[in-house]
Amino acid sequence: MITDTYDVIVVGAGHAGCEAAAAAANLGSKTLLVTMNMQTIGQMSCNPAMGGIAKGQIVREIDAMGGYSGIIADKSAIQFKMLNLSKGPAMWSPRTQNDRMLFAEEWRLALENTPNLDFFQDMVKSLIIENGKAVGVVTGLGIEIRSKSVVLTNGTFLNGLIHVGDKQLGGGRMGEPRAFGITEQLVSLGFESGRMKTGTPPRVDGRSLDYSKMEEQKGDENPQKFSYLDTPKLTKQLSCHIVYTNETVHDILREGFDRSPMFNGTIQSTGPRYCPSIEDKINRFAERNRHQLFVEPEGWKTVEIYVNGFSSSLPEDVQIKAMRHIPGFENVKVFRPGYAIEYDYFPPTQLYHTLETKLIQNLYFAGQINGTTGYEEAAGQGLMAGINAHNKVHDKGEFILNRDEAYIGVLIDDLITKGTEEPYRMFTSRAEYRLLLRQDNADIRLTEKAYNLGLAKEERLRNVQEKITKSDELEAYLRETSIKPGTINPILESIESSPVDQAYRASHYLTRPNMTLDKLDEIQTIKDITSAYKEEVREQAEINIKYKGYIEKEKENVAKLNRLETFKIPIDFDYSKLSSLSTEAKQKLTTVRPVTIAQAGRISGVSPSDINVLLIYLGR
Amino acid sequence: MITDTYDVIVVGAGHAGCEAAAAAANLGSKTLLVTMNMQTIGQMSCNPAMGGIAKGQIVREIDAMGGYSGIIADKSAIQFKMLNLSKGPAMWSPRTQNDRMLFAEEWRLALENTPNLDFFQDMVKSLIIENGKAVGVVTGLGIEIRSKSVVLTNGTFLNGLIHVGDKQLGGGRMGEPRAFGITEQLVSLGFESGRMKTGTPPRVDGRSLDYSKMEEQKGDENPQKFSYLDTPKLTKQLSCHIVYTNETVHDILREGFDRSPMFNGTIQSTGPRYCPSIEDKINRFAERNRHQLFVEPEGWKTVEIYVNGFSSSLPEDVQIKAMRHIPGFENVKVFRPGYAIEYDYFPPTQLYHTLETKLIQNLYFAGQINGTTGYEEAAGQGLMAGINAHNKVHDKGEFILNRDEAYIGVLIDDLITKGTEEPYRMFTSRAEYRLLLRQDNADIRLTEKAYNLGLAKEERLRNVQEKITKSDELEAYLRETSIKPGTINPILESIESSPVDQAYRASHYLTRPNMTLDKLDEIQTIKDITSAYKEEVREQAEINIKYKGYIEKEKENVAKLNRLETFKIPIDFDYSKLSSLSTEAKQKLTTVRPVTIAQAGRISGVSPSDINVLLIYLGR
Repeated sequence: MITDTYDVIVVGAGHAGCEAAAAAANLGSKTLLVTMNMQTIGQMSCNPAMGGIAKGQIVREIDAMGGYSGIIADKSAIQFKMLNLSKGPAMWSPRTQNDRMLFAEEWRLALENTPNLDFFQDMVKSLIIENGKAVGVVTGLGIEIRSKSVVLTNGTFLNGLIHVGDKQLGGGRMGEPRAFGITEQLVSLGFESGRMKTGTPPRVDGRSLDYSKMEEQKGDENPQKFSYLDTPKLTKQLSCHIVYTNETVHDILREGFDRSPMFNGTIQSTGPRYCPSIEDKINRFAERNRHQLFVEPEGWKTVEIYVNGFSSSLPEDVQIKAMRHIPGFENVKVFRPGYAIEYDYFPPTQLYHTLETKLIQNLYFAGQINGTTGYEEAAGQGLMAGINAHNKVHDKGEFILNRDEAYIGVLIDDLITKGTEEPYRMFTSRAEYRLLLRQDNADIRLTEKAYNLGLAKEERLRNVQEKITKSDELEAYLRETSIKPGTINPILESIESSPVDQAYRASHYLTRPNMTLDKLDEIQTIKDITSAYKEEVREQAEINIKYKGYIEKEKENVAKLNRLETFKIPIDFDYSKLSSLSTEAKQKLTTVRPVTIAQAGRISGVSPSDINVLLIYLGR
Repeated sequence: MITDTYDVIVVGAGHAGCEAAAAAANLGSKTLLVTMNMQTIGQMSCNPAMGGIAKGQIVREIDAMGGYSGIIADKSAIQFKMLNLSKGPAMWSPRTQNDRMLFAEEWRLALENTPNLDFFQDMVKSLIIENGKAVGVVTGLGIEIRSKSVVLTNGTFLNGLIHVGDKQLGGGRMGEPRAFGITEQLVSLGFESGRMKTGTPPRVDGRSLDYSKMEEQKGDENPQKFSYLDTPKLTKQLSCHIVYTNETVHDILREGFDRSPMFNGTIQSTGPRYCPSIEDKINRFAERNRHQLFVEPEGWKTVEIYVNGFSSSLPEDVQIKAMRHIPGFENVKVFRPGYAIEYDYFPPTQLYHTLETKLIQNLYFAGQINGTTGYEEAAGQGLMAGINAHNKVHDKGEFILNRDEAYIGVLIDDLITKGTEEPYRMFTSRAEYRLLLRQDNADIRLTEKAYNLGLAKEERLRNVQEKITKSDELEAYLRETSIKPGTINPILESIESSPVDQAYRASHYLTRPNMTLDKLDEIQTIKDITSAYKEEVREQAEINIKYKGYIEKEKENVAKLNRLETFKIPIDFDYSKLSSLSTEAKQKLTTVRPVTIAQAGRISGVSPSDINVLLIYLGR
C-alpha cells in the first residue's frame, strides 16, 4: 500500500527515533517515522527535564551537529540552570526543566516541518530481511513498507512489562500498549537479547502540596540555553523545590518490601544504578537517614508535579502512605503512582561504531534498545544512527565521533566495546578527555564536521567560525596586553592573590585562581576592548587562556592514543591462534571484534599485556 | 490507598467524562476523574470539530448551563461557521473546526483548575456495588476507591475491537489499550449489553495535497463563538477544502469489499447511519457517482489533515489506492489509515431520565456507553449525569430537562424511552419544538435553571438577565414605534416588498420576508435607538418579533400530535410508496409496523415531518 521505498525507516518516536528521523531526513534521505501513536511523539516518559551533568554536554553536541533536542528543550523550558559552576569548565553542565506537553508538541511540529520526512502510525511487528540486509518493516496491520535501511528505537516498548507492587501489566508506558514481535525475530536471527528495568516516580497534584515546608530552588538569574542558534532565552521561570525523606518514610517503605517486585524476585533484570528507586536507595544506603527529592513542576500551566528521586515500584498504597510523611506532602494527592518497567534490549556489543548491527546490514539500533538510560543518551545515539543510515544507503563513509571529540563518541564506543550489564548513563568521568569535551565548545568541536556532512546548516557554521575568530582575536589581545603592577595590584588584592612587582600580560593574571575576565574589566582600558565581545566569545577566550596547559596536555594524550586508534585489526582476525593471549581476552576479543588496537585496549578483561601480544603479532 | 471517599467518581475523560467531572465538582461534589492515561484527557477521537446542525445547539446549551465544552471549543477554534443561515433561526447551527492538540490541552487545564476535582490514572476494571448501590471502583492495579456514586463514560473503550480490512486488534482508540471487566460485571448483574460500531477516516499529510484542485471553504467573515461568556472571537481562521469522490474512487473501493469487515460479516454491530463509512455510502447510494469530502486541518501548526467523509474500515491499501484518485490527492501520504471500532454499549432504556441506571442506584451512564455518537451528545449527557450524581448524593432532587426546554432533553428522553438500535445522533428534526430550542436562546432557556442548581455562576445569570431585559425593551420599542409610508417605502422597495399606504409599527415590517433590523436601521431615528443594543440583543428581539406566529403555531402542532393516539394506520400499509418519507423512516416503519400515528411518532428515526407525510397521505 505504501508504494514508496524509503531510504530510512525509523521505528519509534521517542528521543532516539525523533533525532534519527530528523537527521536522516535533513541529510536528504527519504525517511519514514513509524510510531504506534502519533499523539505521543516526543514524549518525556520520565522526568520533565533535559541535560544535567554530562547529559547537558550531549544536548549541546546534538545541537552543534544540527539535531533538534537543544532547540526543543529551549522552546519548552520552564527553568534553566548551569550546574557545577563552582567547578572547572569541564564540569559545567546545562540543564532545563521542561513543560512536558510543550516539549512533545514542539517535537511533533519540528518533525512535521522537516522535508523528506513522512509519518505512519502503526506498530512495527517485524523487519523485512533479505540477503542479510534490513529492507523494510511489517506493521501490526500487516502492511509491508520497504526501505534501504531501518533504525530501531523501541525504548521500553519491546515486551514491556509494568510492575506496581505485585501487579503486572503489559505496556510500553503506563496506559500505552507494548510492542512485540521484533525481539523474537531478531533472536531467531542470532541476536542476543536481554531484559532491563527502569522506573519512574509518582506524579502528584501540586495543589495538595505545602511548599512553605520546602526549600525553593530557582532557576539561574541569567538563564542560558542549549542551542547555539538564536532560540529565545527564558524571561520568566518556574521554581522547583527540595525536600527530604526521613526515617518514618523509610520505615513505611520497608513495610512494603515483601510486596516489592524488586526484592521478592519478580524483577530479575537490572535497573539504572545512578537513578535508583527510593526502595533501592534505602536498601543500599541503609545508614542514610534521609534522601533528597526534587519537586518538579510539569509545565507552565499544569498543576501536575513530578517527584524526582522517589521512583518506586512498591505497591501504590505504600508509595502514598510513605509520601504523606514527607514535609509538605501530608495531604498529597497522587495522579499516577510510580512504577517499574522491564523491557527487552540487545547487548550493544552486537553493533559497529556506526550503530549498525553486525549481524544484519543496514539495521541500526539507538536508545534504550542498546541498554542505555536517559533522553540525552538516546537522542545522541539516534542522531548518529540517522546519519550513518543515511550515509550507508547513499554510499558515503561511516560517520564516527572519537572519544576525544564528543561525549557521544565516548557513549557509543563504551557501548559497543564494553557492552553494558545495566542501563548505561553518561558521566563526565567516563570521558578521558573531559576538558576537551566541554559544553561551551561543542560547536567548535562538531559543527564543521556536521556542516561537511550536510547536516549543520550554513548559519551554524558561520556562527561558530565567527566565534572562533573573535575568540582568537580576544585571546591574542589578552596575551599581548601588559598590565602594570599599579593597575593590577588592587584587583589582585581583592581576590586575595599576591601582588606583582612588574608588568605582566593580561593572560598571565587570568591563569591565577579567582581571576576572571570580569575582574580584569575593572580596568577601563581593558574593558573598552573586551566588552565589545559576546559573552560566549569572552568565555571561550578566558577558558583557552586559563586552562591552556591542561588542555594541551590532554591533546598530547589524545595524539598518543590516536596512534593506537589508527592501528587496525583485520575484522576476521583469529584470536584463538594466539596462545599468549589470556583465555578471557581471547573470548572478549572474539566477541567484540575490535576494529583497532585502541578499541581492543578498552575492552574490559583485555589487559595491557594482551595488547602487547597483539601489537607484536600484528607486526610492529 | 486513596483514603478519601468521593461523592462522585467519573470513569473516562472524554467529552462525557470531562463534562460530568466538571459539573459535579463545580456543584461542590468531591469528585475523582479516573482515566487510563492522563496524557489523553479531552481527546477528539474523530473529527477535529465541534457543533454543527443540532449539535451546535447542544454545545450552546452546555455552555448556558455552565459546562466547559463551549469555552474549550472557542479557545481551540481555528475556524467558525454559523451553518444554515439561509434558513430560519431554528436551523442556525454554530460549528467550529478545532486544533485537536489545543482542545485536549485546554480541557486538561480547565479541569485542573476546577476545585474539588481530583485525578487518578488507571483503568477501572469493576465497580464496587453494595446493597444495590454503586459505592466505588476497582482499578487495574487493584486499587479500591470508594465513592457515593459512579458515572461511567467509557466511550469506545469497553472491549474495543479495531478493524482495518481483515485485521483486528484490541484497543479503545488506535494505539491505546481497551478496557475490560465492566461489561462482564454489569451483565452478570442483569444489565443488557450490546455492540456498536463506529469509524474514522484516514489522517493524511497536508504537504502531499494539491489544494489548487479543491474548493476553499473559509470560515465566517464575522466569526461568532459558542460561549455566552467573553471567550475571545477568532481574529484569524484556517480554511477547509471541499473535494468529491468519483466513479474511479468508488470502483477501487468496491474492489476491497470482499475484505471489508462491514460486508464480509466480521462486523455485525450497527454503525452511525448519518456518519457512514465511504464504502457504506457507495453501497447504499449506488446511484450517486460522487460523494463530498471535507478536507479539514487538524490545528494551527500541524500539517495533519482529517479527510471528513472518507471514514473507512477497508484494507489500508484500498483506502490509499482509492484516495489517490481524488482530485488533489494524487500524491497523498497517509499518516494513519481509517478504521472501524466495535465496542460495548448498554441499551439506554435501562436508565432513568437522570441517566441513573434502573438496576443499580447511584450508577450513571453517559456518552457512547448509551449508544450515542458525537462529542456534543456525549458532553450533554455527561453534564446531566454529573449534575444528577451530585444531586442524588446530596439528597437534592432530580434535574431533568424537558423536550421543550433543550435538545439535551430531547436527547435523553429519546434514549431512555425509545432506546436506540444504532448510534444515536442529534438532529433538529428530532425536536418537536425546534423553534423554541434555538442556539441563540439557550442561555434564556437554561441559565437560570443552572444558576438555581448552583452550576451557572452569577456572571452568567447577570448576562442573560440583561439580555432578556434589553431584548424586551427593544422589542417593546419596535412594537410601539410607527413608521410612516414615506419613510419605510423606499426600504420596502429595496427588498422588493410591497409599499404601504399608512403607518405601521416597526414590528409589522419586521415580519415581512427579507426585512431585518439592519434594514430598519437605515432610518436614522430608529438606528439612534436600536444601535445602542448589543448584537445578541438585537438578534433576540428580531427573532421574537419575526417568528412569533411560527412559534405559536408550533405549540399548537404539539397539542395536535398528542391527539394522534387514536389515528390508526393499516397494518399492511406500504411505506415504500411514500417517496417523501425519509429512507430511515421507511425502514423503521416497515419493521415496527406501528398501529397508530402516535406510535409511529415515537419510533426513533421517524421525524415530525415524516408524521406529517403520513397524516397527509392517510386522509387529512
